[in-house]
Amino acid sequence: MVPHLITALTGPINELEQRILESMPAIERWFRLEWMEHTPPFYASVDIRNAGFKLAPVDTNLFPGGWNNLTDEMLPLAVQAAMAAIEKICPEARNLLIIPENHSRNTFYLSSIAQLVRIFNMAGLNVRVGSISPDVKKTTTIELPHGDKVVLEPVVRSRHRLGVKHFDPCTILLNNDLSAGPPGILEELYEQYLLPPLHAGWSVRRKSRHFQSYEEVAKRFGKMLGIDPWLINPLFTPVRGVDFNEDASIEQLATAVDATLAKVRRKYKEYGINEKPFAVVKADNGTYGMGIMTVRDAKELAGLNRKARNKMAVIKDGQPVHDVIVQEGVLTQERVHQAVAEPVVYMMDRYVVGGFYRIHAERGTDENLNAPGASFVPLAFQHGAQLPQPGARPGASAPNRFYMYGVVARVALVAASYELEATDPDAEVYD
Amino acid sequence: MVPHLITALTGPINELEQRILESMPAIERWFRLEWMEHTPPFYASVDIRNAGFKLAPVDTNLFPGGWNNLTDEMLPLAVQAAMAAIEKICPEARNLLIIPENHSRNTFYLSSIAQLVRIFNMAGLNVRVGSISPDVKKTTTIELPHGDKVVLEPVVRSRHRLGVKHFDPCTILLNNDLSAGPPGILEELYEQYLLPPLHAGWSVRRKSRHFQSYEEVAKRFGKMLGIDPWLINPLFTPVRGVDFNEDASIEQLATAVDATLAKVRRKYKEYGINEKPFAVVKADNGTYGMGIMTVRDAKELAGLNRKARNKMAVIKDGQPVHDVIVQEGVLTQERVHQAVAEPVVYMMDRYVVGGFYRIHAERGTDENLNAPGASFVPLAFQHGAQLPQPGARPGASAPNRFYMYGVVARVALVAASYELEATDPDAEVYD
Repeated sequence: MVPHLITALTGPINELEQRILESMPAIERWFRLEWMEHTPPFYASVDIRNAGFKLAPVDTNLFPGGWNNLTDEMLPLAVQAAMAAIEKICPEARNLLIIPENHSRNTFYLSSIAQLVRIFNMAGLNVRVGSISPDVKKTTTIELPHGDKVVLEPVVRSRHRLGVKHFDPCTILLNNDLSAGPPGILEELYEQYLLPPLHAGWSVRRKSRHFQSYEEVAKRFGKMLGIDPWLINPLFTPVRGVDFNEDASIEQLATAVDATLAKVRRKYKEYGINEKPFAVVKADNGTYGMGIMTVRDAKELAGLNRKARNKMAVIKDGQPVHDVIVQEGVLTQERVHQAVAEPVVYMMDRYVVGGFYRIHAERGTDENLNAPGASFVPLAFQHGAQLPQPGARPGASAPNRFYMYGVVARVALVAASYELEATDPDAEVYD
Repeated sequence: MVPHLITALTGPINELEQRILESMPAIERWFRLEWMEHTPPFYASVDIRNAGFKLAPVDTNLFPGGWNNLTDEMLPLAVQAAMAAIEKICPEARNLLIIPENHSRNTFYLSSIAQLVRIFNMAGLNVRVGSISPDVKKTTTIELPHGDKVVLEPVVRSRHRLGVKHFDPCTILLNNDLSAGPPGILEELYEQYLLPPLHAGWSVRRKSRHFQSYEEVAKRFGKMLGIDPWLINPLFTPVRGVDFNEDASIEQLATAVDATLAKVRRKYKEYGINEKPFAVVKADNGTYGMGIMTVRDAKELAGLNRKARNKMAVIKDGQPVHDVIVQEGVLTQERVHQAVAEPVVYMMDRYVVGGFYRIHAERGTDENLNAPGASFVPLAFQHGAQLPQPGARPGASAPNRFYMYGVVARVALVAASYELEATDPDAEVYD
């Protein structure tokens, strides 16, 4: 089930959306069966691009920020989903410790942490925020807009447990993507639940691994639905050992871009799409919208200046980039307040709990919107209009146009669970 | 977690409410642990009376109607909870058959059925409505207000399965309280899930059995919270073999009323409450607000005229009344639009998904409101105001005054699960 949120979509419902809307029971059952075999990541947000003819996830975040951008009305859904998640993992839990990112003075980010504290408190847990940043040496209260606040406490580590002073949590919720690698303080916590696990951090995760899982899952989903999986799957090519300051390396990248664009061109031809294909080059372990570049022609790469090369070569927490993926660019045809917009879907456990539009007034329909200058427009709940009911008199019910986003986001969520299984260092191998 | 709904409560928060609000994490953990050992009824609604000094359930309905009185905003919560319930019971489910009450021309009731169809459809199931009424001989479409409709189909029974034409459900949801006894057509359905089970119907259920379980559970809950369980528990005395047309029988009932009023009087004295105790006599298997009488003094019973006696002696589906409970009357101090009001809390699986006020302009604060002339006022969601956050600056968050109702309703839900375990004819007995 996906809450009925008002999207920017006002055009006619195309074939893909129609197929998804009318297959709801089959789709929901498919998810139920997936979750019988696989465990969803604790929480996630998925960036989606809707080109009209095609709808695809372009990034799956396993340490979502931005919870403060969800409306008050979505909160009960998030709380109910959090309850379901806790119930399954650790029903006896009393105390939860949230570990935020280390750049802990950003009030936008901290407003998201305050919202997470609220959600898990409403779900029935005592919640504290423990920073692993070396800069947080004592308890620090940070006032936020709207009278909110966050209390950051330095973590205290014992042999096998992590907590803050006078607070011993049984569950630790990571909201720190560990781009710089998991610090020792988070290792060997054998007595506590650490969610999501360390290998969900960006020191281990690779976009290419995620989209490999996504491709597999999208194929099976497409087969069930009777659609070409390309309609929900962005093609991609991984390129390893890239050095942005070496021409031979750039040439290798250009070849991959060419190959990707050729594949997309064939698909566009097959579907009679009159758009110019483009590709997005992304650091394979990139996050925070860093290390991302739109390429409309492989030749552009040879002409990159030093500044542009340097920008691609280093990402969050100063990590150097060696591996990239060349991803099929997916246009976004949605606009909010005239600005180019892409939906971001939030999930807790297996449930879609809300979403918003990321908009950027200065970016084009083929560019990364997760960049300075982006803003967020919450999606409002559809009121008054009845939810769609099969067989209901036409006009009596408005279709839930957010449903399609919730479906594709959950296909990405299933892919993330396959990905985490495949990359689990402690996995038992059955042959 | 309980959604933050706006209640009619505007007075100061008293000691009981304060204790419940500040113990939220402990309360939620207590429920989590209960649900590890016990299975919640599939769905339920609980009528609650708030006397200010005391807050207690007075009826727990395991075949709730009135889903149409919940607001659109509550629907996503109900759907998410329905998904969680289905996932646990029958994740492989495709088709769900709802069996409504037999008085199938009441459009108020059918609007509730239409809402249930919508909820389970949004949860990802194909849903049909199969009537077991002998009057429904062919598929009948009933148009409802607001462009809704319900399609009633006659059920089709095979050896071990029940369905409707061309529709074989794996799960059957009963919304028929079986006051007249379970019809043979619902028995021996060994291949399908029947929810709730037949023994949840009023041919087996007894209010006295429910409130016996409730008393046990309220005692344990009160101990955990450090409160006198009477503050959430209505005292009661069961009286068996009553014949309303025999004076000896009426005398026996008067003795029970006297005893109950005496106990309540002692409690009122202990707490310095200046109210006149009253009792409510209810048919032990009564439903639909039938077979209920407020008694302020045992002497009133001797003076009952024939009409009043006959009214108590027969309930829904013409069932004669032999057993009654004498329940401590709980005043309701809440008013909506000047009318006396009592909250009704709706639950799906273990989750509170919404609620509304039942109001009755012509009834007193000590009378049954579930009677002709009652109407329903949905509780609105609290908007704008932040949800309560412990330690937040005063005024920054409004307390969720609906929380207390959600807690007491769930204590009744736990009691119902104990009750159903105790009355299960197929239970395995471990010694």
